[in-house]
Amino acid sequence: MIIDIHGHYTTAPPQLAAWRKRQIDSAGTPFTEPLVISDDEIRETIGDGQLRLQKERSTDLTLFSPTAGGMAHHYGDEETSRQWTRTVNDVIHRVCTLFPDNFVGVCQLPQSPGISPANCIDELERCVEEYGFVGCNLNPDPSDGYWTGPPLTDRSWYPLYEKLVELNVPAMIHVSMSCNPNFHGTGAHYLNGDTTAFMQLVLGDLFQDFPSLKLVIPHGGGAVPYHWGRYRGIAQDAGRPPIEKLLDNVFFDTCVYHYPGVRFLVEVIGADNVVFASEMIGAVKGVDARSGHYFDDTRRYVDAIQGLSETDREKIYSANALRIYPRLAGALERVVR
Amino acid sequence: MIIDIHGHYTTAPPQLAAWRKRQIDSAGTPFTEPLVISDDEIRETIGDGQLRLQKERSTDLTLFSPTAGGMAHHYGDEETSRQWTRTVNDVIHRVCTLFPDNFVGVCQLPQSPGISPANCIDELERCVEEYGFVGCNLNPDPSDGYWTGPPLTDRSWYPLYEKLVELNVPAMIHVSMSCNPNFHGTGAHYLNGDTTAFMQLVLGDLFQDFPSLKLVIPHGGGAVPYHWGRYRGIAQDAGRPPIEKLLDNVFFDTCVYHYPGVRFLVEVIGADNVVFASEMIGAVKGVDARSGHYFDDTRRYVDAIQGLSETDREKIYSANALRIYPRLAGALERVVR
Repeated sequence: MIIDIHGHYTTAPPQLAAWRKRQIDSAGTPFTEPLVISDDEIRETIGDGQLRLQKERSTDLTLFSPTAGGMAHHYGDEETSRQWTRTVNDVIHRVCTLFPDNFVGVCQLPQSPGISPANCIDELERCVEEYGFVGCNLNPDPSDGYWTGPPLTDRSWYPLYEKLVELNVPAMIHVSMSCNPNFHGTGAHYLNGDTTAFMQLVLGDLFQDFPSLKLVIPHGGGAVPYHWGRYRGIAQDAGRPPIEKLLDNVFFDTCVYHYPGVRFLVEVIGADNVVFASEMIGAVKGVDARSGHYFDDTRRYVDAIQGLSETDREKIYSANALRIYPRLAGALERVVR
Repeated sequence: MIIDIHGHYTTAPPQLAAWRKRQIDSAGTPFTEPLVISDDEIRETIGDGQLRLQKERSTDLTLFSPTAGGMAHHYGDEETSRQWTRTVNDVIHRVCTLFPDNFVGVCQLPQSPGISPANCIDELERCVEEYGFVGCNLNPDPSDGYWTGPPLTDRSWYPLYEKLVELNVPAMIHVSMSCNPNFHGTGAHYLNGDTTAFMQLVLGDLFQDFPSLKLVIPHGGGAVPYHWGRYRGIAQDAGRPPIEKLLDNVFFDTCVYHYPGVRFLVEVIGADNVVFASEMIGAVKGVDARSGHYFDDTRRYVDAIQGLSETDREKIYSANALRIYPRLAGALERVVR
């Protein structure tokens, strides 16, 4: 079984983006317009999109969440974010209900700059307990490119972590769009977010306080594996524990879009902490004109790694996902039943 | 010959930091205090520091600049930055005069948030023409962690690029300290700065406008080589030229502190665009308790790359540096004479 832990509903029917635009434009006045999308429209966008690619690549299941760039927590106020978040999470739930064999939900959180992460708890509970979602995406920069909030190790995040632990769901640390003209979204802000988050964890005591909390750093961990020696050295110079200790709680996905990068990731980090993902249909949509293959067909890269044992490959493809997302096994059982 | 293109005077006598502190504290009032450091004090800090490590590692020459984290362009106003910059560049010149066989100068620029980069031209000219410096460090984020200025491809930078081209010196794109609590300096802000700068270059037409401008992205290019496929794909999706075209103008240094990372850098980017550097004594000062070697002894990693031809190794160790820094050959001749 091949589980892709990182997929976004980037192909949602255009009504969703149009609704969101009107919601943002209505700032300051009540916005009560319902979102109208038919089941057939959802079936079509998934069937022609993520489901088709699943089949083409012979992967089995995608942990599916709202478009990361679309979370855009900086727009409006807390209520804007809450209404938008409930709306897109509902859409994800509909996808997962229509295609229960192929998609399991991961929710967006109703974060907002300057607002306590504790205020995300009710939506997290709703998605996990009512909808059967197995994880969430946590935006380490709700200001979307200006990083005006506190680091992930700040105690203001703790109520949310407590709830994650209680519900037994992990968070993927995933920034959203960038409204800073210096940072291209998928080419800079995403990778910077990953790198920044890891370094915060190196310096903090988060997992001392939450030993069972699990965090996924997407996009192969940003710059982290490539600079593993730098992190080892910084940690040692600062009198911190060896960074390998973080691997009890931190995992990196395989959203690295060339073979040498994925091979390197597995070599440096080891199969126990690498988890299969493609981010499709997402950051890089195209077919490589040189190879004729999709850049984000990361299964090809994992398959190509020479000398990877079957056990290790299975860890990357499914066993690690089942370990990181403990509720996933239950979700799969419900499907089989 | 082994040329290290990236070294900072992090070991300067304590008077320098004390002077700087008083300068910052004096904000708003004239500060005219001279910096007093003797030649013997400079000799001692270099002899026990960077020169000792050069000898231990059998490298020959370091392109030497003020501490990157210490540029701290956000403090005070333009005049604060100008005074500080002239002062530290003068100190670098003294090092290079005392040790002409071992150090060649690279200058800091008197950048300041919101101030035109054109205002850096006189200091650049002074350092290159009067002191024989061969390059400069250009901070892409003078706000030091909040990225409030325009991208490197913005036309406001053009007067500075024109002068770089006219003087025939390159710039290393190097952020300074981070005053944003989200970004650890050497573990996040540095690498994010590298990644961010490269992505700006992917989307801009800078080298169409300045075909002979050369830029060095330090720290192995941040996350860039590890995500080379992502950048290839983003460029293709956006209808930009293949990113390999950037390699006419952009170079990556070897400040990657573990062997697999340096090997990967050379594998992905190729020997023509990788240039030897250690950043010593800098980001990671310690001796790896596991290996017994300095993390930043990057010569060990380059030497260990199997199958690298002698020609390619020479490119990385010296030929590329001489190509990127055209004034370096003249500086070396003056020493030999």
